[in-house]
This record gives sequence, C-alpha cells and structure tokens, in this order.
Amino acid sequence: MGERSAPIVAHEEALPAAGAVAADWLAGRAARTPGATAIEADGRAWSWAEFDRQASRVAAELRRRGVAEGSRVAVALPAGLGWVTLFHACLRLRAVCVPLNTRLASGELRRLLDWLDPDAVFGLPWAGRRRRRRRETAGAGVAAIVATSGTTGRPKGVLLTRANFWWNAVASALHLGFVPGERWLAVLPLFHVGGLALLTRSVLLGTTVLLRRRFEPGEVNRLIDAGRVQALSLVATMLERLLEARGERPFPPTLRFALVGGGPVPRPLLERAEALACPVLATYGMTETASQVVTVPPVPGAAHPGSAGRPLPFAEVAVVDEELRPVPAGTLGEIALRGPTVAAGYWRDPGATRRVFVRGWLRTGDLGYLDEDGCLFVVGRSDDLIISGGEKIAPAEVEEALLAHPAVRDAGVWGVPDPLWGERPRAAVVLRPGAGLDAGALRSWLRERIAHFKVPDRIDFVTRLPRTASGKLQRRLLAAGAVPDREG
Amino acid sequence: MGERSAPIVAHEEALPAAGAVAADWLAGRAARTPGATAIEADGRAWSWAEFDRQASRVAAELRRRGVAEGSRVAVALPAGLGWVTLFHACLRLRAVCVPLNTRLASGELRRLLDWLDPDAVFGLPWAGRRRRRRRETAGAGVAAIVATSGTTGRPKGVLLTRANFWWNAVASALHLGFVPGERWLAVLPLFHVGGLALLTRSVLLGTTVLLRRRFEPGEVNRLIDAGRVQALSLVATMLERLLEARGERPFPPTLRFALVGGGPVPRPLLERAEALACPVLATYGMTETASQVVTVPPVPGAAHPGSAGRPLPFAEVAVVDEELRPVPAGTLGEIALRGPTVAAGYWRDPGATRRVFVRGWLRTGDLGYLDEDGCLFVVGRSDDLIISGGEKIAPAEVEEALLAHPAVRDAGVWGVPDPLWGERPRAAVVLRPGAGLDAGALRSWLRERIAHFKVPDRIDFVTRLPRTASGKLQRRLLAAGAVPDREG
Repeated sequence: MGERSAPIVAHEEALPAAGAVAADWLAGRAARTPGATAIEADGRAWSWAEFDRQASRVAAELRRRGVAEGSRVAVALPAGLGWVTLFHACLRLRAVCVPLNTRLASGELRRLLDWLDPDAVFGLPWAGRRRRRRRETAGAGVAAIVATSGTTGRPKGVLLTRANFWWNAVASALHLGFVPGERWLAVLPLFHVGGLALLTRSVLLGTTVLLRRRFEPGEVNRLIDAGRVQALSLVATMLERLLEARGERPFPPTLRFALVGGGPVPRPLLERAEALACPVLATYGMTETASQVVTVPPVPGAAHPGSAGRPLPFAEVAVVDEELRPVPAGTLGEIALRGPTVAAGYWRDPGATRRVFVRGWLRTGDLGYLDEDGCLFVVGRSDDLIISGGEKIAPAEVEEALLAHPAVRDAGVWGVPDPLWGERPRAAVVLRPGAGLDAGALRSWLRERIAHFKVPDRIDFVTRLPRTASGKLQRRLLAAGAVPDREG
Repeated sequence: MGERSAPIVAHEEALPAAGAVAADWLAGRAARTPGATAIEADGRAWSWAEFDRQASRVAAELRRRGVAEGSRVAVALPAGLGWVTLFHACLRLRAVCVPLNTRLASGELRRLLDWLDPDAVFGLPWAGRRRRRRRETAGAGVAAIVATSGTTGRPKGVLLTRANFWWNAVASALHLGFVPGERWLAVLPLFHVGGLALLTRSVLLGTTVLLRRRFEPGEVNRLIDAGRVQALSLVATMLERLLEARGERPFPPTLRFALVGGGPVPRPLLERAEALACPVLATYGMTETASQVVTVPPVPGAAHPGSAGRPLPFAEVAVVDEELRPVPAGTLGEIALRGPTVAAGYWRDPGATRRVFVRGWLRTGDLGYLDEDGCLFVVGRSDDLIISGGEKIAPAEVEEALLAHPAVRDAGVWGVPDPLWGERPRAAVVLRPGAGLDAGALRSWLRERIAHFKVPDRIDFVTRLPRTASGKLQRRLLAAGAVPDREG
C-alpha cells in the first residue's frame, strides 16, 4: 500500500555519538516525560510538552523571519520564559544563540552587536532585525557565542558547540548524579555560561528549572527551607550574601548540593557554610569549557578541603610550565584542560584562538597545582601572579589569609612595581560593619599565617571592591588604581 | 631537562566520544572517588581504590598467562569478588569476557566451551587453560560474549561491545537518575546481561553494588527495610516471591526503584506491588541491547499502566510488519530497535546475525504495539502468536486474564494445531496453595474478560511451569507437551 511508511531498512546508519548530540533534545525530552514540569518562571509552570509546543511556535516564527541553520540570534531579554523558548527554538533550527548582557549600557551593546554581527536581535527595540555585515559564520555545530565577562582586556566570543553542551550535561550527571524531576534553582545570568549550561543539562536530564531574574538571598533561603530546591549554582559572593541573610538557621537535607564557582572559594566562607550544613561543592570552570569541568564530588572525603575537586568524566587536567610541559604534583603552574567540552575557539579572533586552544588543549591562564592525590587547587590568574625578588606570590593566597580575619569581609591583593624587588603586593580590604582594625594589626595577623615576603607593604580600607557581574575580582582595575571609595 | 615529561602539545587529538568509551573506566572511577564503596560481596566491602588495585593484580596475572587484547576469558565462577575482578581485568586488557552459566551440567558446559572456544577458563578445573581451535576473534571493541538464555532453539552468543555498555550506562543514568554512592542490589546472575550491565553502570556512575550469589526474598526484604538498598533489578517471578515473603508490610521510601524486566509484568502483580508502595518500574530489554532499552520513567504519570514505558535516550523503537514497515499506533507487530546499545552481532552465526541485525535495526522477534502516546506494550514472542481462524491471539493477554483471578498463581498459554481453526489456545495454570477452582469456572471468568475466541479450549492444573533461569516462560516446552506435574 503506497500510503504506508517506508520500510525501516531504508535507514542506513546506526546511531553514533554524533546522533545523540544532533538529536532534538527538547522533542526527545517531551516524548519521554511530557507531563513533568520543565520550568517555573514568570509566575508560570510549563510541562515539557508545553515547552516543546512553545519552542515549535517560536521556531516557526523565527523561520518566517529568515532565521535558518547558522543564523545568529542575539538575545537581550530578561531571564524568563521568552528567553529560554528562544534558546530552544535556536537549538531546533541549528541557529546560533548569542546571549547579551542586559546590564550593559546601550553604547557597549552597540559595539557588541557590531562585532557579533547577528541576523536578528531580541529585546533591543532599536536593533531588531539586522542585515549581516559579513558572510562569515560561526562554524558547523556551534550552538551559542557567549561573550566572556572579561576580567582582562577586550571581551572574547566563545564558540560553544552542541557537543560541548551535551558532554557537559552527561559529565555533570555522572559526576554529581541527579534525580529526575528534582528542582534546580537558576539565579546565574543566562548570558553567562553557568546559566546557559543549566538549561541544556535540564532538558537532557529531565530536571525542573526554577528560573529567577535576579538573586534575592531572602527568597532563595525561603525556597531552600521549603524543600523546593535540590540544587543551585552560585558564585562565592552570592554564597556570602546567602549565608549573611540566613543567620544561624541550618540548611535542610532536601538541598542536595550548592555548586560554587566563578573563582576560588575562600576557606573561611567554606567553613561558615559547612557550619550551617550547607552542602557546598566547589567547582572550577569557564566559558571556554561550557561551565564546570572540575568539581568536588558529592561523596564524603572525595576531595581535599580548599580544592576545586576532581576532573569531571572525559576531562583531563594538566598543570604546565611556560613551555607547556607538565610540572610535578604540588608545583604551581598554568592549568591546561582537554576534553569534549573545550570550546571550538573565539569569534573573529584567530590570534587568541591560536594562543589559547593548542591542539585540543585549552590554556586557561589560571594558576594552580594538582596535589599528590589528583585534586586541583586554583590560586588565581597567571596574569595576577606577583614576582617579588624572584619569589612567586599568588594574590589569592594572601587574600585568603586576610579573609580568615573575623573583621574582614572582602579583600583584594595585586602587584605594584618596585625598584628593588621587581614587584611588591598591595591589598585593599572591606571590613565588616562596625569592625575596627588598622593596617598594622592586620599585617601582624598576616605575618603569623604567611611568609613575610608575601605580606603586603600597604593595606587600604575601602567600602567595596571592583567585581564583575559573575563576582570575579577585577585585579586589573585595582592595579590601575581604581580602588573605589577609599576609607583608610 | 631531559627527565621532564613531554610537552602537552604532543597530544594530537581532542577527546572524542570514542575516547570516553575506550578509557579505563575503573581507573577513572578510582581517580575520582577513591574512598567510596565500590562493592560489597563475599562478606567484604571494597573501595574503588581497592577494587582498582585488585583488578591491576588480576590483569597482571592474566597477562602472564598470555591473555591479551581480543583473548576470550570464560568465567564460570560463582558471583563474587573474584568474578567482578576478572571482569574488570578483562576490560583493562581489552580481552573478551565470556560469562558461563554455572548452573549448567558439565556436558552442556563442554559443548558451550567447544563453541565459544576461549583462551582461558576460570571456575572449571577440568577446563582451565586452553588452546584455541580456530584463530577467529570476536571483533574490535567486543567486551563480552553473552550466551542468551534461549527460550527457543540453540543458544546464541551475543557480541557486546564496550560502546554498548557505555551507552547503556549513560542512557540508563539519564532515564532513571542516580545519586552517587547509592546502593544497587545485584541478584540477577552475572552471566545474564542484567547482572553484567549493572556492573558497568556502577563503575561509570560511582554507585555501590551489593552483590548476592542468589536471590533470597527474606534477605532482600530485610536489606530494603533497613534502607540499605536504593535500587534493584528483578524479573517478574522474583518480584512475585519478594511480595509473597513480605506480607502486608509497605516498602520504605529509601528504595528509589525496582526495575522489573525479563518479560511482560502481569498487571495483577503490578497492582499488588503498588498496593505496598513498591516503586516498580517495568522495563524491556534483552541481551542484544545490553539490557534495558525501554523503561517506565520514574516520574508520576510518565507512562501508561501496563506498558513497558518509553525508549531510553538515544534508542529508537519501531513496531513493524513482516516486511519491516512501521505499522500505525495501536497495531500489533514485531518490535524493532535501533541505537548505540544494539549488539555487534552473534558469535559464529553469520546467518542469524544477518536475519536479526538489519542495517542498524535489531529485529527482536517480540510482539507489541506503541500506543498513541508513544508507550510500548510488549505482548510476547512473535513465535508464540496463536493464529486462530485468522484472528491473532497473544498468549500473554490470556495469561494476564488468568493471573487476574485471585486463586491463580502462575499461568502459561500456547497454541495447539486445530483442523478447523488452524490453531487454538491451550492453558496450564498453577493455583495458589489451598485454592479450589475447576477449569469450567476459570473459563467463565475468562469469558467475562477477553473475547470468546481467545478462551482456551482446555486448561490443565499443574504444580509449576517451565521457566528459564531468568524467569521467562518456555512456551516451546509447553507446546512440546512438557507440562510438568499435571494435577487436574
């Protein structure tokens, strides 16, 4: 009968790994658990079936507007159902999602748009539909171009592929486990890789995303206490604010873990979290690895305190010298990473791509060491390393010693040129409200904890430190003299 | 300095999917969670670090005995630490593990060994070290040859690759979720794919295996009640025995799920389990798909009652006619499967391989249908289908109607030749102890539940039915007149 489907023997190839990556993730998820809750945002809850219908509707609309495979779609909407639906519509069409930081000034956004050159823009009425300036595409399989928050220099556009996101989801699931239907709170911006990768993990694993436009410590604590959150991702400053808003109330066991990344987590903060039974898992990752790539496993004693944990499955970590040779355990060097979540390169920046992506390895520019047991310790950016009289000083080590003082709330350390030593460390410190402390007392405190040559010659007291939207300390601004609101 | 490691730029290729499959899974697991418990068996508990050491020791010993990549190592040991260590040693050496059914008679084992032609045999002192009869190998990437329990015809040796096991572990994790360190009870024989795939999943996911030599319902109930088991895999007859030994005591919430496979699960049994809050998830799979490939998701309402659930990620299910064309939803046909867990073929059986593995699709020989919603219903073997007056009768449907009677404990239905109708159904029934019931009353019961032409002309009362070690009803034996212990 001519009406019937073709025989299945017409399918030629067995499903390879590439097939799993290329599949329509949202359609597959909606086929498997149609009625389970996909997302709660904007005061509404969508099932996977509903989410799939909405993505189809938006994909059809995008297609009508000329968006096709490889088109770049910039999104400057606030985090919400519109945002995530656009993202999945782009995935469905094999278009490239280009998330934009909604906090930028319009001048910055204009420069970003000129550079990223999208075919369509959502959320910026003055931009809207555009005509590409050049014919250049991001390359096959690229799902998103994510602009790095850039602690240094001009921003880079990281080319993240579907495969990067797929492997991140699978590796993260194997490392951390998950229970279908458990609820993950998304408070990191969706224009950062931490927020974006949470969306792709959710659709592949079938977990529910609780999406919030901004991080409100009080509301997050209420959701956690009501048992409505099983997992969340934070940066260290968010954890700090969460604990401060919480007081002495311990965390309930319904919270399975709190991933804390975006930079080394100071030990005093970790200890305060631990005292409240907060299941913090330190994690290390970056836009160039589609988010976390090294994480403390959620198994007692699986990683040494203060470390960023162990590589996720399929990832390799090496600590290398200037000539990219691995250094012995315990030796400080640059962290290099390899694995299927390493990005395809940088948008329109072949020079940076060549420097950073070296035959499958990613040179992170981060400083760290592996201990004898294989745990990774991250101590900062290699650009931030202070060389004083030939000795290396990692600013993060000095900051951690400062933060261990009960009166210190935040601390930043950087190097300043010195005619005798080459460089010497300097510090800026934010005190807790009501705390009284002078630089001399703080230097005495440091001398008991770190080598004398590492103690900053000068400590300024300030009301806040320059940090990026994701909470990273901007040492370059400190070094440039931009210590805000000097007090002492 | 010549002593230092080579620069990392010497590594040429980024890690592809194949790299994850080819990696040393046990070494990787031991590197990530060395101290967590890997396995409890033989009254001992091993951490992953210890397990890794033991596998290295055994791998070194195997190497000394000449075992190398592609060698076949037959294992006829009882389920225990020796068994699982040998398995991981084989994986490490890229040798092929050939599990043997320890319950076979020595004559049967001899025939099996002649056919499987291993290089080494463990657990059979009279076999021990052998010399291969032929030079033939199982093929690249093959990790195990698993002899099917064979409800029909001679056994087949299923060639299961590392990739089959890897994708089964990942797909199962994405479908069911897991919590690192949770405990899985292994009571299925390790010479069956259900037992074997549990070992590979455990090492990739970092869950703890509680390995038992045999299924003791009383002990399993005690472990479950003590909260020591979060997941277990059973066949329907085991679930029946577990519930019988349990009485009215509900299951605790610490048991996350009980996978029940090895054949359709009768609805009355499912309902009894549900009444005791037993989190049964029906599952469908076979040796040729490296175990489960369709499973009810652990999400309320995700699959229709009585169905085997939905395809695992990366798997495709089709129901096809005799010419391998997909049939409409709701129509009975042969179940065909495609995906990365479909085996590489059969050992020394190119004819069967050609018939069953058709361009990436596996023809299961199982009968079933997909409902409008995409849930799979399995109704038996296509060989078992009874054609009576042109009408199709699935024995499983009649058996389910028989099992719904409170006095019926087990039931088997098969076809017998009939000069008028072509075939007619016949039944053998095991009554519950003390139950009184005659064939006439049972036929009346059936007439109220199924079409009259499906009601067996004859019902025999017996004390037990012929089943395989994995609990599958052997209808071929019934059809051959081997109804044991006839009573009525």
